[in-house]
Amino acid sequence: MQYSEGQVGRVFTVRIDDGEDFIREIQRFVTAMNIQSGMIHFLGAVRSAKVVTGPKEPVIPPVPRREEIFGGWELLGFATIYPGEEEPSIHIHTVAGKGIRSLAGCLREKAEVYLVIEAIVTEFVGISARRLPDEKTGVSLPVFDRTLP
Amino acid sequence: MQYSEGQVGRVFTVRIDDGEDFIREIQRFVTAMNIQSGMIHFLGAVRSAKVVTGPKEPVIPPVPRREEIFGGWELLGFATIYPGEEEPSIHIHTVAGKGIRSLAGCLREKAEVYLVIEAIVTEFVGISARRLPDEKTGVSLPVFDRTLP
Amino acid sequence: MQYSEGQVGRVFTVRIDDGEDFIREIQRFVTAMNIQSGMIHFLGAVRSAKVVTGPKEPVIPPVPRREEIFGGWELLGFATIYPGEEEPSIHIHTVAGKGIRSLAGCLREKAEVYLVIEAIVTEFVGISARRLPDEKTGVSLPVFDRTLP
Repeated sequence: MQYSEGQVGRVFTVRIDDGEDFIREIQRFVTAMNIQSGMIHFLGAVRSAKVVTGPKEPVIPPVPRREEIFGGWELLGFATIYPGEEEPSIHIHTVAGKGIRSLAGCLREKAEVYLVIEAIVTEFVGISARRLPDEKTGVSLPVFDRTLP
Repeated sequence: MQYSEGQVGRVFTVRIDDGEDFIREIQRFVTAMNIQSGMIHFLGAVRSAKVVTGPKEPVIPPVPRREEIFGGWELLGFATIYPGEEEPSIHIHTVAGKGIRSLAGCLREKAEVYLVIEAIVTEFVGISARRLPDEKTGVSLPVFDRTLP
Repeated sequence: MQYSEGQVGRVFTVRIDDGEDFIREIQRFVTAMNIQSGMIHFLGAVRSAKVVTGPKEPVIPPVPRREEIFGGWELLGFATIYPGEEEPSIHIHTVAGKGIRSLAGCLREKAEVYLVIEAIVTEFVGISARRLPDEKTGVSLPVFDRTLP
């Protein structure tokens, strides 16, 4: 088990508006604020979004199963931020609900805001981390400076 | 994109008991502790609750779709706290699960606790925010002191 | 309403790898880092897990309804940490999604990681808490040092 230890730094309250792309905007925000490591909590709604909802089969490397949602879905989500190869790498999971339906997975590519998404971005300081492509699993994984054997 | 920058202040661990109304109790707690801005994470269960699960159509202003749940649902949720017009304004999203069913949306009006809801209330200091009715969208939105153009 | 007041202490970024048991590993981590009180946020996926998804009937004491999931489910979750009778007591809620299905509840016993689970463990200092069996409800509840009447 790899890990790193740090402290909480700055906290940002963020509002992403109707019609904006949540993924692009939060990426832009994290870059502009020069946040190296941290986490994001968010709530709000989307007009449409793409969500990876598990693998087709639980094998390595994964072949993602994809869903696309349309028409006003409520969101509740959480993301981690680590330095990527070029820019901050943000891994976002969400649950999305509409009526009695809901799905949960990894928000990817595009998520067009409906009305508003409110996000809290919490910065960590003192963390040693990078998110890098991992040969064994075929996905990008955070690499930390410490190990609990 | 509007935002504000601050720091984490006090942290409160809170227990809301069987039969209590989670929404009323957490509102009362935030008011009593004089928390201006912050976030809430919670887990637990409800005997019944009202949830807005997206709009009927993704138009502005929204016409909310409402679900009411009964009979012991597990919760996992997140909320933001900003000063409202008169009292703290708390915007709560949750996912609720019972057996193989789940739904996600905005917790409103009443959520009667089953056994317990455990909440963590994290205060932010230095944030400049108010949640105010927004003419353009027809809902209340947080208004912050800074803009990322 | 019982509560306690403290501050945020250390923050840990943690990576639990494919094939490991998330529940056992995070318990081991919290114990090794000597975290008394805190919270955990996590995202990732599991090959299989056991989830309590509400009671069979909303009575006291509860008779849990159990689901077992297999085959690659995406997770998003939150947990609280308080001192238990012998070791740290961790109460974990999660939503799990696979395709258009999702369920939400309390993660118990075993959750075998698929690819990775990324966790953020936030320590609280100054909190006075214990999680103890509660006679009235038949479950373990956090007991705090303060009361809001």
